[in-house]
Amino acid sequence: MVSLDKNNRVAYIPLMQIPNEKGDVFHAVKKSDNHFKGFGEAYFTTVKNGAIKGWKKHTLMHMNLVVIHGEVCFYLIDDQNNWNASYTLGPKNYGCLSVSPGIWVAFKGLTDQKNIILNVASEPHVPEEAITKPLSDFPLW
Amino acid sequence: MVSLDKNNRVAYIPLMQIPNEKGDVFHAVKKSDNHFKGFGEAYFTTVKNGAIKGWKKHTLMHMNLVVIHGEVCFYLIDDQNNWNASYTLGPKNYGCLSVSPGIWVAFKGLTDQKNIILNVASEPHVPEEAITKPLSDFPLW
Repeated sequence: MVSLDKNNRVAYIPLMQIPNEKGDVFHAVKKSDNHFKGFGEAYFTTVKNGAIKGWKKHTLMHMNLVVIHGEVCFYLIDDQNNWNASYTLGPKNYGCLSVSPGIWVAFKGLTDQKNIILNVASEPHVPEEAITKPLSDFPLW
Repeated sequence: MVSLDKNNRVAYIPLMQIPNEKGDVFHAVKKSDNHFKGFGEAYFTTVKNGAIKGWKKHTLMHMNLVVIHGEVCFYLIDDQNNWNASYTLGPKNYGCLSVSPGIWVAFKGLTDQKNIILNVASEPHVPEEAITKPLSDFPLW
């Protein structure tokens, strides 16, 4: 587990890919993981090549993000601590991006295959729990 | 929720696909689902086109299986209740196959794309918890 910010609000956890001649197995999230904050919902979001979804900031939900197909660049902003970063998940960097509530997130699809993100979220999705802003509100870097 | 057997040990739950011009969203499993039996681990398994993985019977793990890419045929046997069935998940039939412990499961990849299955499992994976048999032990139908 590698904290990406000094406040330990965003972390990257490398995950195992287990080769199998009939089809590989890919770890995602375990109950025993330090960054697991409870289970509310698991869902997938996809993002087309070159499309950018965001900005969204969850007020309660802790996200565990895993890219199982394609490649996705995540843009992360902690505006209360004056921190930002981008991080790409995909086959060359297979792991979990663990994001605490309070972080602004946007993400961009990087391949013309289906770019598929699993979110194992601590809370079930309810629209009122998240705050959104237009993409133009923060410049991308 | 549609029980596939009379003992309510295997069920199919259709899931929502939410269209979005930047990339669709796909429901998987919620804490509030009747068939959710707790969270132990989420992991992916893939199965190549024409390959068949199985047989495996979990003794404790309740599985919630969702095919997010490609198409997979699942073969299910309840040998204590003399029941079997097969069920195909994929884009034409997007949903969750909820499988209680005690059911023999095998599955076959049906496309030359990556056939990707998410399992939201009630227990973390431990090899001792599952019983395996060679494919030839039960004829496929």
